[in-house]
Amino acid sequence: MHNPNDPSLTSWVESAQGSDFSIQNLPFGIYQMEGITPRAASAIGDQVVDLYMASALFSADWKYDRTVFLSPSLNAFISLGREAWKATRRELSLLLMGGKEAKPELASRILIPMHRVEMLLPVEIGDYTDFYSSIDHATNVGIMFRGKENALMPNWKWLPVGYHGRASSVVVSGTNLHRPKGQTSAADDQPPVFGPSRLVDFELEMGYIVGQGNALGDAVSTEEAEGHIFGLCLFNDWSARDIQRWEYVPLGPFLAKNFGSTISPWIVTMEALEPFRVPGYVQDPAPLEYLQTTGDRNFDLNLEVFIQPEGKEETRVCQSNFKYMYWSIAQQVAHHTVNGCNLRVGDLLASGTLSGPEPSSFGSMLELSWRGTQPVPLNDGSERKFIQDGDTVIIRGHGIRNGVRVGFGEVRSKILPAK
Amino acid sequence: MHNPNDPSLTSWVESAQGSDFSIQNLPFGIYQMEGITPRAASAIGDQVVDLYMASALFSADWKYDRTVFLSPSLNAFISLGREAWKATRRELSLLLMGGKEAKPELASRILIPMHRVEMLLPVEIGDYTDFYSSIDHATNVGIMFRGKENALMPNWKWLPVGYHGRASSVVVSGTNLHRPKGQTSAADDQPPVFGPSRLVDFELEMGYIVGQGNALGDAVSTEEAEGHIFGLCLFNDWSARDIQRWEYVPLGPFLAKNFGSTISPWIVTMEALEPFRVPGYVQDPAPLEYLQTTGDRNFDLNLEVFIQPEGKEETRVCQSNFKYMYWSIAQQVAHHTVNGCNLRVGDLLASGTLSGPEPSSFGSMLELSWRGTQPVPLNDGSERKFIQDGDTVIIRGHGIRNGVRVGFGEVRSKILPAK
Repeated sequence: MHNPNDPSLTSWVESAQGSDFSIQNLPFGIYQMEGITPRAASAIGDQVVDLYMASALFSADWKYDRTVFLSPSLNAFISLGREAWKATRRELSLLLMGGKEAKPELASRILIPMHRVEMLLPVEIGDYTDFYSSIDHATNVGIMFRGKENALMPNWKWLPVGYHGRASSVVVSGTNLHRPKGQTSAADDQPPVFGPSRLVDFELEMGYIVGQGNALGDAVSTEEAEGHIFGLCLFNDWSARDIQRWEYVPLGPFLAKNFGSTISPWIVTMEALEPFRVPGYVQDPAPLEYLQTTGDRNFDLNLEVFIQPEGKEETRVCQSNFKYMYWSIAQQVAHHTVNGCNLRVGDLLASGTLSGPEPSSFGSMLELSWRGTQPVPLNDGSERKFIQDGDTVIIRGHGIRNGVRVGFGEVRSKILPAK
Repeated sequence: MHNPNDPSLTSWVESAQGSDFSIQNLPFGIYQMEGITPRAASAIGDQVVDLYMASALFSADWKYDRTVFLSPSLNAFISLGREAWKATRRELSLLLMGGKEAKPELASRILIPMHRVEMLLPVEIGDYTDFYSSIDHATNVGIMFRGKENALMPNWKWLPVGYHGRASSVVVSGTNLHRPKGQTSAADDQPPVFGPSRLVDFELEMGYIVGQGNALGDAVSTEEAEGHIFGLCLFNDWSARDIQRWEYVPLGPFLAKNFGSTISPWIVTMEALEPFRVPGYVQDPAPLEYLQTTGDRNFDLNLEVFIQPEGKEETRVCQSNFKYMYWSIAQQVAHHTVNGCNLRVGDLLASGTLSGPEPSSFGSMLELSWRGTQPVPLNDGSERKFIQDGDTVIIRGHGIRNGVRVGFGEVRSKILPAK
């Protein structure tokens, strides 16, 4: 059977070679353009593939309802199940593979230049859960707020700490957000003041979209867990550090986070990410039985964060990797459901801030500027402790293996002045 | 214009008099029965009113699309807006008012005995937010876990503490839940163990359903806030205390809560609750400007909790009131949106555990048994520190003013053994 991950495949869409959207990727998203209602798409090089149009050319092996691609979210397609996702990616690979003279007549029927379309939120998100699974991030934050001796909470190495975030304010790349207003307090014994947050920060994260739900009451094992994920995307979990510090006890972050979170428009399937598997951390203490896994459960995906001041060039401020996860996706899903909590198709899970061991890999300004004590220089000569009005934050991510690149494109969002 | 709150109104449906579902109530819900797809209903006495059938008899003043009542959730109806909710309640009042000989021919066309129908989840919930707004509850829990001197956190009297809960596992009354399994730890320096929670607890709360959304970035003022709420329901925010104690630092409750939360099937409109307004607490320190309110913002609604062991009679273990809110609905909504967080039609907000000053009014077993040190006696001769397998927990609630009763019916749910 045709293998869409075969590194020797090339596409007649020439821009695909070496791009995030190589023929080995074939991600899924939702686009719209003038005269076209929002609908499902894949990406190849600098082109969008209209899946409704393309599916008319699929082989007889593909036996699903084409109208799922006319839905304004991917939920209908995802609900068809893993076999349908694989079959669709296989058919797309067959359509798009070959030398540059292979199928030129197809281009005008199924391809649209990316710059002509608008990408929308790819899924209707039921619930959004954020984890806290990078040991370097948790340690850094712990040192800053509780000192070196108590950096990690007693539970941290026993379970993937997570909490529920806000689904309504998850927006797609390109959506700009106003600086949030809220209460902050200089010290716990002083009255708070109200005003725009002074410490707006990004958090470099990966998001995962649930592809298969579980019934309320049923746990998902670590072995089954990855099978419940449709694919991954880039995720910026915007945070207002000063609001968070004052509000978060005892029930966790609330207004510090829910003013907006930004996701990339393209969901890269778990299947396309198979070649990028790497071993995870050695976990000591050994996890409880329900959190134990076998095999390689982490993914080697390069992640970068850029800051672009208004009208200026961008500066890379962080180089990190998705492999810096102490708790894997499999463990996060197993933990999330071990009490019977039900996940639904389209739900968003996120990794937590992905910091590595090197200071250049820290995934937030809080860490990069070490709580504002070490300003980060930008190419335009300015420096940043946190994010300023007019700054655009861009996250990009990709893996390279056997000469093949599979990437996520980018997620970008500008912070506008407080309303 | 006809006033559906007029205390002198009576209904030709005789069971309405003195019932939770008096003619002054007219709540909204979703029902199904054999041969009928899930659809919208109101309630009068011991009868369900089919809104699609009833709306065929509405006057010409009612100028909306009847098919919203054929939807399997109230979201479509709620999205019509406040004028539509009021007009519908007015038309229902006109149809159902009068002496017992008034409209006997109508009964068979629009009424169905409640015992013949199944009530479903009334709304499609986008996001669920839980607050922590009873000062007696927060103080009790604070004393237990941090001592009398530090009972309330420094932020508690400055803002309505809230956090995001799980929407997928909010279930309707009558849905039983398995005792959750998870990690617990006897002490922070001891390894955790995995198994069924030993400290399952109810939390007596009120839920509010959002009736009008706000755009991302727009704050809702305290004056506008109640106008964004469609109505209220009873809510049991099940909690596993031992799982919570171990997992909740630093990002809040997660698996301790998301195994299930139970809401009552009937949403009582804000309009029907107008007669029950009472002043709130005197707030000292004075809230910041964006949290200031005028007028009576609390509601005098009696709330009771009962425990019914398997096959035994029920025992009332708690008598509380919705008026025990330090932070009002108006303040909670204003706080939730002050950073621009968008609420959507159908979102669920909850009050937090409603404890009053008297020990008999404490809204959880944690408080009633004072962390298990003072077991609560039941009528069958047994006693409870927390909830046991086979126990059904029932919450009932109603207000009485000017001889008129307006109530919520009940929310009930049984704890089944761990799977």
